[in-house]
Amino acid sequence: MKVLVANLGSTSFKYRLFDMETEAELARGGVERIGAQRSDAFVEIAGQRSELAVEAPDHAAAVEACLGQLTEPDRGCLKDASEVSAIGFKAVHGGRAGGVCRVDDGVLRAMEEMNPVAPAHNPPYIAAMRQLGEKLPEMPLVAAFETGFHETIPERLKTYAAPYHWATDYGVRRWGFHGASHRYVATRTAELLGRDDLRVVSCHLGGSSSVCAIRGGKSVATSMGMSPQTGLPQSSRVGDFDAFALLQVAERTGKSFEELLAELGSQGGLLGLSGVSGDLRDVRSAADGGNARAQLAIDVYVSSIRHYLGAYLVELGGIDVIAFAGGIGENGVDIRAAVCADLEGLGIEIDPAKNASQRGEGAVHAPASKTEIWVVPTNEELVVARQTKALLGN
Amino acid sequence: MKVLVANLGSTSFKYRLFDMETEAELARGGVERIGAQRSDAFVEIAGQRSELAVEAPDHAAAVEACLGQLTEPDRGCLKDASEVSAIGFKAVHGGRAGGVCRVDDGVLRAMEEMNPVAPAHNPPYIAAMRQLGEKLPEMPLVAAFETGFHETIPERLKTYAAPYHWATDYGVRRWGFHGASHRYVATRTAELLGRDDLRVVSCHLGGSSSVCAIRGGKSVATSMGMSPQTGLPQSSRVGDFDAFALLQVAERTGKSFEELLAELGSQGGLLGLSGVSGDLRDVRSAADGGNARAQLAIDVYVSSIRHYLGAYLVELGGIDVIAFAGGIGENGVDIRAAVCADLEGLGIEIDPAKNASQRGEGAVHAPASKTEIWVVPTNEELVVARQTKALLGN
Repeated sequence: MKVLVANLGSTSFKYRLFDMETEAELARGGVERIGAQRSDAFVEIAGQRSELAVEAPDHAAAVEACLGQLTEPDRGCLKDASEVSAIGFKAVHGGRAGGVCRVDDGVLRAMEEMNPVAPAHNPPYIAAMRQLGEKLPEMPLVAAFETGFHETIPERLKTYAAPYHWATDYGVRRWGFHGASHRYVATRTAELLGRDDLRVVSCHLGGSSSVCAIRGGKSVATSMGMSPQTGLPQSSRVGDFDAFALLQVAERTGKSFEELLAELGSQGGLLGLSGVSGDLRDVRSAADGGNARAQLAIDVYVSSIRHYLGAYLVELGGIDVIAFAGGIGENGVDIRAAVCADLEGLGIEIDPAKNASQRGEGAVHAPASKTEIWVVPTNEELVVARQTKALLGN
Repeated sequence: MKVLVANLGSTSFKYRLFDMETEAELARGGVERIGAQRSDAFVEIAGQRSELAVEAPDHAAAVEACLGQLTEPDRGCLKDASEVSAIGFKAVHGGRAGGVCRVDDGVLRAMEEMNPVAPAHNPPYIAAMRQLGEKLPEMPLVAAFETGFHETIPERLKTYAAPYHWATDYGVRRWGFHGASHRYVATRTAELLGRDDLRVVSCHLGGSSSVCAIRGGKSVATSMGMSPQTGLPQSSRVGDFDAFALLQVAERTGKSFEELLAELGSQGGLLGLSGVSGDLRDVRSAADGGNARAQLAIDVYVSSIRHYLGAYLVELGGIDVIAFAGGIGENGVDIRAAVCADLEGLGIEIDPAKNASQRGEGAVHAPASKTEIWVVPTNEELVVARQTKALLGN
């Protein structure tokens, strides 16, 4: 069974193709600049990259162009596009649609309901799924939502202390995101330590970041809430914030609440604090050069990760593994060190030399640390492929 | 030196009178229903309570009526009102005015700036302070702000990841509240344990609630933010919430953001979740009677306290004392037990028998607990009197 996993942006389509008998990645590729006069399709098969100028007025055309590349007689890895059993989408906010499901009108409507809180994420998926459903009616389309892994969070932790009917009538609750990544970490740490009862704090740190408390493979708490704009500070999104502060800024600026929320969603986070960039590498360079606001941005980010680390230490009653994933989690030696600093009294101790030299998956804790600390390069697409296979197998 | 400490509501004035040579409370009293046709003034001196119908069209008249009661020839405790050296106000949001200061136009303007985020708290203080300044021009008026104790919180913890100029231009930051209570707990736990280097988590739980991390007597983090509506769920106020969820509810209801924030500020918290009451005792009765939403409200409240307890465990690198203060903190045996449950692995263990039988100040931890757990009846008015004395002494 071969599954193509799709990751969509408003003008981009990226995919990985998996053979689900072996979980081997057969190919990866994508199309950039969808809707432009000329788009660029690329594919990598067995380490060989090839590129092609294509016409891709929409996402469906982009998918067809990619299937064409995959079935090229000499360089392709498929004899026929019909070998692809399904397309799995790493979709974002499923709302009431739940975790993993075949795409149909009901699912698309549930996604649309969540557009106000995921305006950058949901609309391109909805548009592309509709197109593909029309143009490739034989192809099963599966949505694996980032919210799905967090369905196991208990009511007491997913409920805001808002008027109760806001939850039942409008879906206002902590949904959580980055579910594919946290699920991968849950599965992988259980494999690495050979235990299925682990208490894990999964730190997915990257362009967007969240922390998840996992007990026995299941999410029990996570830092993002109703929207992907809460929890940790993001690249340019605010993270946790006091909604009532909007009253103050509205009065002082005369701006509408919609305008202010848009500012918080695009001019906050590492970018807003540092004034330099939303990319942590740039912020680090500026801080190393003496920029105090850049250093503050890093300190706020690290403090927020530690805030949730502590909250989940109490929620779990102890932590067996802290796992770092995502671009910053996998490569940010200094961030890992800062997150774990000065916690020896709580049984958490990173090994500076291991931490500095680690490349790829591996443990970085000191021998005396009661809590193991791991770098776990995540594989969200493989999780979506597994979920797609499992759903279609039923 | 005698200091009268004032606690104001929109139609009420309550006070305590302290002799600051001994810190003895000489009297307590107040006026209810200010502005009504007939108001009721009461005073307690040496355990003797007396009441009097008075005319009190405004707060200044109420203060004058109380000074009259305190100087009654037979039953009063003062020969003359001039024995009162100052009135100290347990004021709420000082904004840029800082911690403790003589009331003047600049201070009142700084308070007015914060009206949008403290609409129930600041306006009655501002009005009463203006009146008293005019009617009792000889009387020093001192504002001790609830925000003052939290000035020592480091930048990385008081800064939201919003656009940076929101902090500098509009004062958008985590200010923190309940400063008098947390300061009392900081001072008192140091006395009780005979150490000035303690790491304390102070849980002020009552009609409104917050948690504060204290190191060496100084606040280093607290759960309330820009407004007193954030952090823990309050009686009828929401606590931590995702501001972006407002977009969803606005779209579905057609209500304005101001209306929605007002709902979150008056129909959220224990009241909104339980649908029963904002008083925890009522909510507990309903839960004990099988009301699932009432039980959820309690569970959300306790989980939120534990969330901050954990965050501050990591921030402090360990906790020497957990202190419970406020009406719920001092009397809520079940809440104290639930907050501390299942944390033996982290060195936190409550003694069920001590916890159940404790009345007033005392320790309730198990002998094996590394962290001491104390009930500390707070005395916010005494703190304000001390701050008033210290300011005027300078």
